[in-house]
Amino acid sequence: MSSIKDVAMLAGVGVGTVSRVINNTGAVKPETRSKVKAAIEQLNYIPNEVARNFKMQKSKMVALMLPSIWNPFFSELAYYIEDELDREGYKLMLCNSGGKPEKEFYYLDMLRQNKVAGILGITYNDIENSVTTEIPIISIDRHFSKSITCVTSDNFEGGRLALRELVKAGASKPAFMGSITSVFSETMNRREGFVHEAKTMGIEHVIYEMPDPVEDKDTYYNNFFALHRDVDGVFAITDMFAAEYIDRASKLGIRVPEDVKVIGYDGIQDHPYFHPILSTIRQPVEEMARTSVRLLFRKIEGQTLERETYHLPIIFRQGETT
Amino acid sequence: MSSIKDVAMLAGVGVGTVSRVINNTGAVKPETRSKVKAAIEQLNYIPNEVARNFKMQKSKMVALMLPSIWNPFFSELAYYIEDELDREGYKLMLCNSGGKPEKEFYYLDMLRQNKVAGILGITYNDIENSVTTEIPIISIDRHFSKSITCVTSDNFEGGRLALRELVKAGASKPAFMGSITSVFSETMNRREGFVHEAKTMGIEHVIYEMPDPVEDKDTYYNNFFALHRDVDGVFAITDMFAAEYIDRASKLGIRVPEDVKVIGYDGIQDHPYFHPILSTIRQPVEEMARTSVRLLFRKIEGQTLERETYHLPIIFRQGETT
Repeated sequence: MSSIKDVAMLAGVGVGTVSRVINNTGAVKPETRSKVKAAIEQLNYIPNEVARNFKMQKSKMVALMLPSIWNPFFSELAYYIEDELDREGYKLMLCNSGGKPEKEFYYLDMLRQNKVAGILGITYNDIENSVTTEIPIISIDRHFSKSITCVTSDNFEGGRLALRELVKAGASKPAFMGSITSVFSETMNRREGFVHEAKTMGIEHVIYEMPDPVEDKDTYYNNFFALHRDVDGVFAITDMFAAEYIDRASKLGIRVPEDVKVIGYDGIQDHPYFHPILSTIRQPVEEMARTSVRLLFRKIEGQTLERETYHLPIIFRQGETT
Repeated sequence: MSSIKDVAMLAGVGVGTVSRVINNTGAVKPETRSKVKAAIEQLNYIPNEVARNFKMQKSKMVALMLPSIWNPFFSELAYYIEDELDREGYKLMLCNSGGKPEKEFYYLDMLRQNKVAGILGITYNDIENSVTTEIPIISIDRHFSKSITCVTSDNFEGGRLALRELVKAGASKPAFMGSITSVFSETMNRREGFVHEAKTMGIEHVIYEMPDPVEDKDTYYNNFFALHRDVDGVFAITDMFAAEYIDRASKLGIRVPEDVKVIGYDGIQDHPYFHPILSTIRQPVEEMARTSVRLLFRKIEGQTLERETYHLPIIFRQGETT
């Protein structure tokens, strides 16, 4: 039975090169590749052994769990994550967990079985007890109480900045509009920053929240309009919430920004579709994606990371709604 | 050395159940699962054998190649594809090929090596010579000359319908606005249907196209405005083209729909962000996604499909731009 060494000798290359050809990892010149493939054929190098060698290797697959790829913020994030993974020859496995914890548990199981090398996760489910510090997981936005590394934008600063920008635009009674996840999420700091800044500046303000995910949008927005018709500013927890608010407000004859100034969070608008152009707190999506991947690679290699949470800086982007 | 039969006997279950637990496929009750796992541990059932058994199995992974997940049409499609794959326990591997044929070749290689069970592809690259009839690939929109099954919307009918709707809305000199892929794509039938209907009805019309992908948008749209200022209707090959046109037209003082009626293709707008609401030819995205997956499963099982191309019906959705 021929071995990988025989293949390497016949092809006149190193064992590493044969392995790279077999596993399709790393750069191999087309000519070299042809030579190796010819040697494999000539020696009838046993597929089972190939399979076993392949199996011995670490998986070159990373799972991305997110609520839904359909959301423009997540699809932008996924785009850059796949690109960054591809640079190191890793493949992306996509999981829309959309409020289905059992799907997330399944992927955690795959990680334990080495079918995936690591997980990048945006989850709002309570999977905390299934997650330990050692396993290569990077969380995006969600901050676990255990020390799972989290990459997020500076949500607290974003909340403060939004309050200041609303006031600067003329709002005297701004509202925070959001949802409450059952477990602590970094996104909650958007409200904290908003409230902190309002109190510091002595600004009257309103907090409006319902449990996440908000299934019944009609109730959510109708209640808001019924209860808080007097607010003249809205800081929405995401651009999606802001866009939905603006759409519904306009149907009630509330003009944005004349009657109510609106600021969102995410900054996903870079698109001829999106009107009006939202004033928003822009997350550095590309940097968040690439940072998450690079930190995950370090965890896969067994390194200890310096920090528990990586806060990336946000900016205010002026649009047409303030 | 213990075998899978020993594990099954100790756990008091069938070999199939042990296999399902090991490979994480199919439904297994939590109690049964625990019993099997305990038996595996107690017998120190050899991981290599697990690996080999796993390897013997067909891969439960399907690769989705698309130009970019960032595009809202593709992210909606990906959402439903992942959902349909998940019903059968298949995982989705995501590849943004974005005009990089080498990335697509890489995935075709993975398919040959059984690292993926099948490929769903939206490609505009010329990978034709690397693809044969036997391998489980379903193409979306792209029609290969070889008999690779293609799932697409009824592009020809869509083009005809768009022309009729533009005329009905009052356009007397409508333009088709698109791009030309280097290989034949089903999307080209949008133009064919448009031209066919215009000729049948005796309507003066304009065809405006540049090679795909359109990198230099400024040149593309500026040329159009310079050459065809007299058109009073636009049928754009995708909603993205339509949105971009409307955005640029409004900056030049061209009013939509007063001066120019606009119809797009795709129907991705279901979103409070998107204004104005486009009049568009709506593709049945969910049905296209689920049909593609189910046809791929049949190909993976070695079945021969009845048809070469599956055309799914389109509808016209009235928006604010006609």
